[in-house]
Parts: sequence; structure tokens; C-alpha cells
Amino acid sequence: MFESAELGHKITKEVWDTELPPLREALLDAQFDLNAAKFPVIILVAGVDGSGKSETVNALNEWMDPRHIQTHGLDEPTDEERERPHMWRYWRMLPPKGKIGIFDGSWYTWPVLERAYGRMKTSDLDQDMARVARFEQMLIHEGALVLKFWMHLSKENQKKRLKSLEKDPKTRWRVTPRDWKHFEMYDTFRQVAERALRSTSTADSPWIVIEATDPRYQRLTVGKILLEKLRARLNEPAPQPPPIPTQPLVALDELNVLKALDLTKRMDKKDYEEALLTLQGRLNLLTRHNNFKKHSVVLVFEGVDAAGKGGSIRRITQALDARIYQIQPVAAPTEEERAQPYLWRFWRNLPRRGRFMIFDRSWYGRVLVERVEGFCSEADWQRAYSEINEFELQIERSHTILLKFWASISQEEQLRRFEERQATPFKRFKITEEDWRNREKWPAYERAICDMIDRTSTEIAPWTLVESEDKRYGRIKILRTLVQRVEDEL
Amino acid sequence: MFESAELGHKITKEVWDTELPPLREALLDAQFDLNAAKFPVIILVAGVDGSGKSETVNALNEWMDPRHIQTHGLDEPTDEERERPHMWRYWRMLPPKGKIGIFDGSWYTWPVLERAYGRMKTSDLDQDMARVARFEQMLIHEGALVLKFWMHLSKENQKKRLKSLEKDPKTRWRVTPRDWKHFEMYDTFRQVAERALRSTSTADSPWIVIEATDPRYQRLTVGKILLEKLRARLNEPAPQPPPIPTQPLVALDELNVLKALDLTKRMDKKDYEEALLTLQGRLNLLTRHNNFKKHSVVLVFEGVDAAGKGGSIRRITQALDARIYQIQPVAAPTEEERAQPYLWRFWRNLPRRGRFMIFDRSWYGRVLVERVEGFCSEADWQRAYSEINEFELQIERSHTILLKFWASISQEEQLRRFEERQATPFKRFKITEEDWRNREKWPAYERAICDMIDRTSTEIAPWTLVESEDKRYGRIKILRTLVQRVEDEL
Repeated sequence: MFESAELGHKITKEVWDTELPPLREALLDAQFDLNAAKFPVIILVAGVDGSGKSETVNALNEWMDPRHIQTHGLDEPTDEERERPHMWRYWRMLPPKGKIGIFDGSWYTWPVLERAYGRMKTSDLDQDMARVARFEQMLIHEGALVLKFWMHLSKENQKKRLKSLEKDPKTRWRVTPRDWKHFEMYDTFRQVAERALRSTSTADSPWIVIEATDPRYQRLTVGKILLEKLRARLNEPAPQPPPIPTQPLVALDELNVLKALDLTKRMDKKDYEEALLTLQGRLNLLTRHNNFKKHSVVLVFEGVDAAGKGGSIRRITQALDARIYQIQPVAAPTEEERAQPYLWRFWRNLPRRGRFMIFDRSWYGRVLVERVEGFCSEADWQRAYSEINEFELQIERSHTILLKFWASISQEEQLRRFEERQATPFKRFKITEEDWRNREKWPAYERAICDMIDRTSTEIAPWTLVESEDKRYGRIKILRTLVQRVEDEL
Repeated sequence: MFESAELGHKITKEVWDTELPPLREALLDAQFDLNAAKFPVIILVAGVDGSGKSETVNALNEWMDPRHIQTHGLDEPTDEERERPHMWRYWRMLPPKGKIGIFDGSWYTWPVLERAYGRMKTSDLDQDMARVARFEQMLIHEGALVLKFWMHLSKENQKKRLKSLEKDPKTRWRVTPRDWKHFEMYDTFRQVAERALRSTSTADSPWIVIEATDPRYQRLTVGKILLEKLRARLNEPAPQPPPIPTQPLVALDELNVLKALDLTKRMDKKDYEEALLTLQGRLNLLTRHNNFKKHSVVLVFEGVDAAGKGGSIRRITQALDARIYQIQPVAAPTEEERAQPYLWRFWRNLPRRGRFMIFDRSWYGRVLVERVEGFCSEADWQRAYSEINEFELQIERSHTILLKFWASISQEEQLRRFEERQATPFKRFKITEEDWRNREKWPAYERAICDMIDRTSTEIAPWTLVESEDKRYGRIKILRTLVQRVEDEL
């Protein structure tokens, strides 16, 4: 894959002086159009040591309007970052629509290093790269233009480059013993990089390998390719998602997972109060357990309006120190959130170790309300199932306890609760016109809920279906499930 | 993922009797239209033991016209199959356009079994499933409708089913000790299956889980879903591939991998003849080596017209026993081949152990002639790079030595050879109008060749670029590379 980048490509100073000014002007123009066009541009600059990655990044910032560019150098992960799933740090750095994000070092850096040092197996590298490819595919589906540049130096040229940097007192500091150590490992790095590049060069986002021997050639090429790709994308008509056949509508009988729930389950007041106190006590003790600091907890509450999500959440938080939990009520996304992939606002809210994050409604909005109301295309919600499974897999892998509760009530019970809310002055604010409108779409919602459970109740993160017709019964089932899971985990 | 399939779905005999006749008629109609519509339908029937998979497959064959259905039961791989890459057996079974292929057991069976028995690691299962997802994606890109049915029984119902089969003397033979052993492993199987289904349920081809408790419900549901999906696809307008931006056209200098080759390299006749004899002798001995029987060899020859591919191939085959090699000259695909994914005709020709298969032109036609002549869309050749890398990865993994030679000559030398062929009566047949036409597209081909080398010269299967301006030099370089590689391998 590096053949074309070992030929000694170079340009003269004359070519550089002639070509650069019009390129800069064109890039600024394109950047201006990008602001209106509303898609993000993600540029990865990767490659071997001493290949002028940061110089290239600096040049791009110099040529364009840096106010609309976010540049991220890859340092060691912070404490904040270490306590969350590996990809969390990159999600934070994603540029919003209309902006350019440049990554000097990226989600490739760590796996390639680990593999080259032999601290990771080849099969694990392959798995990481498959995950990366799915991540980038998701970014592209969400509208991003993803450009991946690999700066390449032949072994001989890398040696020359390091030596010449060392000779100059002004640049000597930049060559570390680590650089020389990596140079000794050149062949290993080359092989690992080739493997990573091969498995992530997709039709939508191929790696672009650039020879880094001549800095002028290198920077001008990067600039021109960036311009070309940006212009091509700006000139594209709005993408028409290909029609994807709908999920089978065939239903030979009336049975489904919701209807199969036994909503007559009840609990009397005395049993309830006793169980509540015991479980809350156990939960509180668990959060004070030494091992608890190694975990975080993510709770997802979904259910139709008035199913009792809020009440159940309160029964949990009553048992918790207010400093260790947060509740995220999920309403319509903010402007900032709308400028990002739909999962972004959930990624940003993942908790640190030792903390609870409680989502009152969640990322499942994509396959529920957004599907039923037509807020996203069918292609979008169809792909969401696997994107969500992938997201939850990453959560689970980072010492996080993830529980998902579906609070279920009958249509009649919902009506009863709506009317009660209408009649009670301090509850009236809870019920809006929209709630009544949603109620009319009950069958479409039921369909979406059943599909959601079938597609996302996985061995990694199963759904807990909660019979909530009787509030007491539902609350205790939720609390008990939570307490048992945390106990098992610690 | 199995929640909806543990509810006890069933239908009455009355419903069955009313619904089946119109369904059968509609399926026959759809099958008739499929014949004209020219896309293949691939149906996987998978699931737990005793879940009536083969009964369902039989029903489909009974309801439709079995002449246009190919049904494949999954037995142990044959010797033929064992000596080729794992997926080879499935490639052979793919239905052509206009037909339905039903797989009772599939590419999922083996990985799920191996993992459940603990003979395969979870990470390997995940890798296998990622590969399967890419394979199915390729089938879909190539036009196939892929339907994946998973037949599910709850633990309790599986037990009941096995017992009732055992009680009836007519069906007793069907329950083996293995079935009971698998029943003991129910929870493990369920978990592994869930993982496999989760990671391969894509937007384009989600798993469809069907409850198998009531055979009538099960079969009627499968039939109705098949009908619905078939009709939906038949009614779809011809797919418009989304525009994918072209590869960067930016070229700041004239340098490329082809131009960088030193075509002045020559070899005099005496050295040539000596080297030829020595290398042919070594090659012959190597193929008689005991270890050679464990390997197969795939050679790919590509190069512009008159670059000397045929001459080089002859210098190799002169050293081989005629029983151990075959040459596959790749011209336009046959009708049968056109009814399959483009890689199919290469898959079908992969050699057994101890054999050579020599491709005189190859799957690289997709990214060379098909690209340059516009025989396929840009989206198609862009995705071909990773599909080809995946194909070669599978070849390499099956004890196969894969070597790819690009024979390179200058445009002037080509002209000289063309004219010589014109002038020599027994060589004249080798040169056609098309060769002259191709010559005019030299720059476009050069571009496609360089992209091909950059994207498919991988650490798995690197290209060997051969300076073939001097025929003798080129032939010896090819022979020497081959001999060294085989020696290294044995």
C-alpha cells in the first residue's frame, strides 16, 4: 500500500510559489461554503514518526480560517477519559456540522502502537479495526466527510529525516530516544500499519497515502486533495437514502412481547414499604462498597407516557448520595446536539467510575419516536439497531453496569393516569397536547417497541420488561433487578 | 433477541386452511416474476435442534416451483471442500440470478457450534461474524436479496419437542444422542447464537426470528415474510448507486510506481539460459517435496497487452507435471458467470492442495478494464478493493501460496511488439482491433494500475512488479520470486 509513496515525489519551490496562493483562496472559499452546507469534515493525519504530521496540520490551519477548524493533538488520555469507554475521548472531539476537525493522531494510534509493541494480538487488532470501520461508517451515514491521510517515509528517508532534525539545534528537541527506538522497529510498524490501513480502507473512506520526503510536495498534495474532496462533496446533490425494505409486517396472531406481560401483578402497600426500605438500604450499602469505585452504572428508563418512569427513578435516587448520580431527562436535542451524530449527546453524558447516570428516555428515541413520527428515514432507524448494540457493547466493556427498563402499562391504565393528572393541579403540568396525540399512535408505537426489544435485547445488554400497571409492583421489580445486578458485579 | 419468539404463537387449522392456498398462488406468481427480474434470492434457515428447519425448507419447496429453487443441506465438508478456503463450499452453492437458494444450515453453523463447544474463542467468533457480515454485504451489493430466518424454541419447548419426536416410532430416528447433548447445552447455545445474530443483523439484512412451537404458525409466517420481501424487492425501482467521490486526481508530479520502474534492466542470453534451467529444476524438485502436498499455489498474471504474460507462464509450466497445474485464461465472463457475483468465477477455480492454478488475467479486471471501460459503476470498483483484499486473505489462510505479478513494459515497447505480431503470420491471431483501442487509453489504464497497486499490495499479498521490457529479465525475475517463495513456505 506504500508503493506510490516511496518514489521520491517532490516539487520545486517555483511550483510551490505558483500553486499555493490560488489553493489557499480556493480552500477559504470552500470553507465558507461548508459553513452553510451543514456537514462536518473529519481529517485524520497519521503516519510514521518524523513525517511532518504536525507541520501539515499547522499548514492547513494557516491556509484556512482557523476559527472554523478544531485541531486535536493526541496526548495521553486524561483521568476523565480513562474512566469512560475508549472511544469517549474521540466522540467529545467530533466537529459539529459546518466545521472541520483535524486529528493529529486518532483512534488508530493506540491499536497500532500496542500491536507493534506486541502487547496486543493480531486478532485483537483486527477486531479493533473492524470496530473502527463501523464507527467511521456511522459517521459517514450521519453525513460526515471523513478524510484519512497517512504520511509515509521509506526506512532510509525516515533515518535521514531524524538525523537532519537532530543536526539542527532548533529542531533537536523534537527527536526523542523513543523516535529512534521506533525507527529500529520500522519493519514491524510498517507491517502493522499496512494491516490497519488495508482493513479500514473502505469505498466511502479510503486511506490516502502521501509521501513525506519533500515537505512542499506533501503539504501541497494534502491541500489539493482536501480541496478536491470538499468541492466534490459540496457539489453533490443531497443524498437519497436507498429504499430499504421494511421489517416484516406479517403478524398471524395478536401476540407480542408487550401483550404477553401479566399486568395484573400487584403488591400490597405493606409488602411494598418493607421491600422498598430493604432494597434501598442494600443499594445504599453497595454504593459504599470499595469495589463500587471501579464501576459506573448507566440506567435507561423507557416506557410510554405516564408509565411511571419518574416515580421509579425517584425510588432509586432516594437511596443514593446526591453527589454520585445524575439524571438526564431526554427531550428534543439542543442546537449543539443536532449538529452531531444522534448518539453524541448520550456519549457526552456517560458517567465516570463510581457514578450513576440515569437516562429518563434515551438513545432509543431513534427507533421509537423518531421512527414513528418520521423524524428520520427508514434507512436511519434500521441501521440504528446495530449502532446502538455497538454503543452498548462499548459501555459494557468499560466496567459499566448497564440496565435497561421498559415500564409497561395498558392503554386503559394510561388513560386513567392522564385523567388523574388533568384533575390534579400540581400534576397538570405533566400532561400536554402531545401526550394525547401520541396516545393515538399506540399501535405504531407498540410495533416499534416490540421491534426494539427483539433487536436490542442482547446477551450484552438485555431489556428488563417491567409490569407497571401497579406502580408498587413495578418500582420494586426495578429496584430488585438493579440491586441484584450490582451485587453480582461487585 | 428471542423475546418475541417465546410467547407461544400459534394459529388454528382453520386459519391455515384459509390462508395457505392464496399464499401459495402468490408465491408462485412472485417466483415467476423473479425469473425475469434477474436477482438471486438467498434464504438461510437456521435455529435450534428440533425446530423444524428441514420441514420448513420442504414446505417452501412444496409450495413453489422446485425447479427454480436450489436447496442445500449442510453436511460435513467433502474432501474437495476441505482443501480450499472455508467459504469455497458456499460460493459453489450460490444461486444464480432469477433463482432461489435455500440453505438449511449455512456459514453460521460451524462458528456457532465451535464456539458453543468452547473450541473457538469469543474474539474469533466475533471476527468470523464480521467476515460473514462483509460477505453478506457484498452479496447484497451484487444484487442479492438475503433473508435470514432463525427458528427458535424456548428451553421448555425444545425438551417437549424432542420428547414427542422420540415417542412416535415414525420420528424416533430423528432424535440422536447429540440432540440431547445439545439440549443440555441450551443456555450456552442461546448465548452464542444471540451474539452471532446481534453482530450480523444489519439494516440491509436483519435476522428474522420465528417461534417454532407451532409448525403451522412457523411455516405460514416464513411463507408470508418471504412473499412480502420478494414483492417489495420486485417493486423496487432499479437501485441508483449513491455517488462516491472519485479517488484523488491530484498529481503534483509525473512520478508513479510504473514510471519508477527501471525498464532498462536486461539479461544476456547465456545468463538467461543458465538461470532458466537452474530455476526450473529447483521448481520441479520443490513440487515433488513431501510438504508440497499440504499447499496449493495461485499465481496471478496481469500486465498490458503484449507484456509477456503468456511467455512467462510457459517458462513456469515447463517445469511442472501437467497433472498438477491448470491455466485459467480470463476473458469475458460466461453467461453462467454473469449470473453470479463477479468474484464467483475465481472462487470456483481455486485449486486443491498440491496444485497450481495460474490466472492469465484475474479478478483485477474489476478495477482495471471494468473501471476504465465503464463496465461497472464507480461505487462497484471502489468497493472492489476491499472485497479483493478479503478474498486474498481467505486464500492465504488456507495454506495457499498466492503470488501476483504485474508485467510492465513501456508504451513504445508495446508498439514494437504489436507491429512484430502483425508481421509474423503465426502471431497475428494474438492481436486484435481491441488491443489497438486499449492502447489509446494508456493514461487511464496507468492511473487504474497505480491505484490497484496502492490499494491491493498488502502485507498479506504484495504485488511483484516485473520489469518486462527485456523478456528474459522479466521471466527470470518471475521464476526466481516464485521459487524463493515456495522454498520459504516449505
